Amino acid sequence: MNCLSRRLILKTPVHSNPTLNFPSVNVSFYSRPISIHQKRKLSANTAITSLIHHPLSGVEEDLVGYVFGKKKATEVAHLIWKRVIQNGDTVIDATCGNGYDTLAMLKMVADESGRGRVYGIDIQGDALKSTASLLDESVTLKEKELVKLISICHSRMEEIVPENSPVRLVAFNLGYLPGGDKTITTVSETTQLALEAAKKILIPGGLISLVVYVGHPGGMEELETVEAFASGLSVSNWICCKFQMLNRPLAPVLVLLFKREVAETQ
Amino acid sequence: MNCLSRRLILKTPVHSNPTLNFPSVNVSFYSRPISIHQKRKLSANTAITSLIHHPLSGVEEDLVGYVFGKKKATEVAHLIWKRVIQNGDTVIDATCGNGYDTLAMLKMVADESGRGRVYGIDIQGDALKSTASLLDESVTLKEKELVKLISICHSRMEEIVPENSPVRLVAFNLGYLPGGDKTITTVSETTQLALEAAKKILIPGGLISLVVYVGHPGGMEELETVEAFASGLSVSNWICCKFQMLNRPLAPVLVLLFKREVAETQ
Repeated sequence: MNCLSRRLILKTPVHSNPTLNFPSVNVSFYSRPISIHQKRKLSANTAITSLIHHPLSGVEEDLVGYVFGKKKATEVAHLIWKRVIQNGDTVIDATCGNGYDTLAMLKMVADESGRGRVYGIDIQGDALKSTASLLDESVTLKEKELVKLISICHSRMEEIVPENSPVRLVAFNLGYLPGGDKTITTVSETTQLALEAAKKILIPGGLISLVVYVGHPGGMEELETVEAFASGLSVSNWICCKFQMLNRPLAPVLVLLFKREVAETQ
Repeated sequence: MNCLSRRLILKTPVHSNPTLNFPSVNVSFYSRPISIHQKRKLSANTAITSLIHHPLSGVEEDLVGYVFGKKKATEVAHLIWKRVIQNGDTVIDATCGNGYDTLAMLKMVADESGRGRVYGIDIQGDALKSTASLLDESVTLKEKELVKLISICHSRMEEIVPENSPVRLVAFNLGYLPGGDKTITTVSETTQLALEAAKKILIPGGLISLVVYVGHPGGMEELETVEAFASGLSVSNWICCKFQMLNRPLAPVLVLLFKREVAETQ
């Protein structure tokens, strides 16, 4: 696997569950597949069906803002997530970075029931530390308990999410860690594997969301990989679209892969 | 000019202002540049500046609907227009077709003042007849007076719009006339000329909107022409983006070219 070929390789002792304890967030470094501690049988989320009957007004401000240059792709992505994610869902931040998306997701899944789960994945230890710090200063203890931060290649996401979890969102920011080493980036090969894993575990009514940065070497190729993956998703099960700037070639591209609640018969 | 090279050529006698009178809509066929009857000095529309302070909520339902497969590109386009067009504006339907966009625009510009103007252009007489019929059955007499339907190549739009008109929107549906002869389509060369004309006459805060159908021969090439045009628009003055499906290659592409109210200094 080329997961680490262009990345900093984390040298950790091979223990069964080596953990790096942050004050309030469970962070685990794994050098082998993890054992699954919990299996929960979750009944179909009846809230899924209610989504399609929700009036969609009042929340799309950011999309028009994008058109008029007032909103960034990431802001638009968050706006879309809010229309998809429900309290109690399981969501995956497949590229934690500095934690802003992880934080946003946590706010969307957390509620009194405590059923929500956020899995934050990043190959870089520095990213997970940043994310943990951000969470420490931004959320309650109870909310933090819903988060797992894991240093693993995102192509292995299936290994860290309990079977039958109601995975509603898998989100990616493809590129390098802002403020970090710009030569360490996501790469096409493992992004593709991660997308295939996401496709398998996503529930109907779920969303794979990607903000694809293209200004760095390999960025455009990665966009092409994402688009090729999307083009192969069946129309009966998936709605795949992108929002792209035309006169700013280095602007990030927003790609949204929405898994229909009900397959369309044609 | 290749405007008519792939189109049905209308043979009309060469009079100075030949007109074909429909019951309530002024339709003119021109075989030479028209003389401009009116010149109005229009003061800057102060409503332009108010747009950027408008709360953008409650109207973007269609954009999220597009992402979730519930809305078509044309519906999304209309939604965006509503955020841009103000009563009293001048708007151009550069490809009238069967008149649905023309009608929608008319509803957006018409008000008590009667200052609004809709110029509907199509190279096909059948299209203008359809449009006129639709307007007849859908709008009031007073509203109809605001419309001019003109059979001319849209590359010549500068000739039909009075100088200093507050042109807020120029809209295109690129492709063939639904229900008509599918071999008669818009073509890259004249679409490009029409875009250049639109660029010249559009006011700050205005929008060039294109729904580009790509399923017919020449369609993809025309999309490339549009994208190339958009990529050449300066970032300081224009925000250009597109919304495109990734797993439905023949789905129409929505392209939006928004002219900033105030040029961005960098």
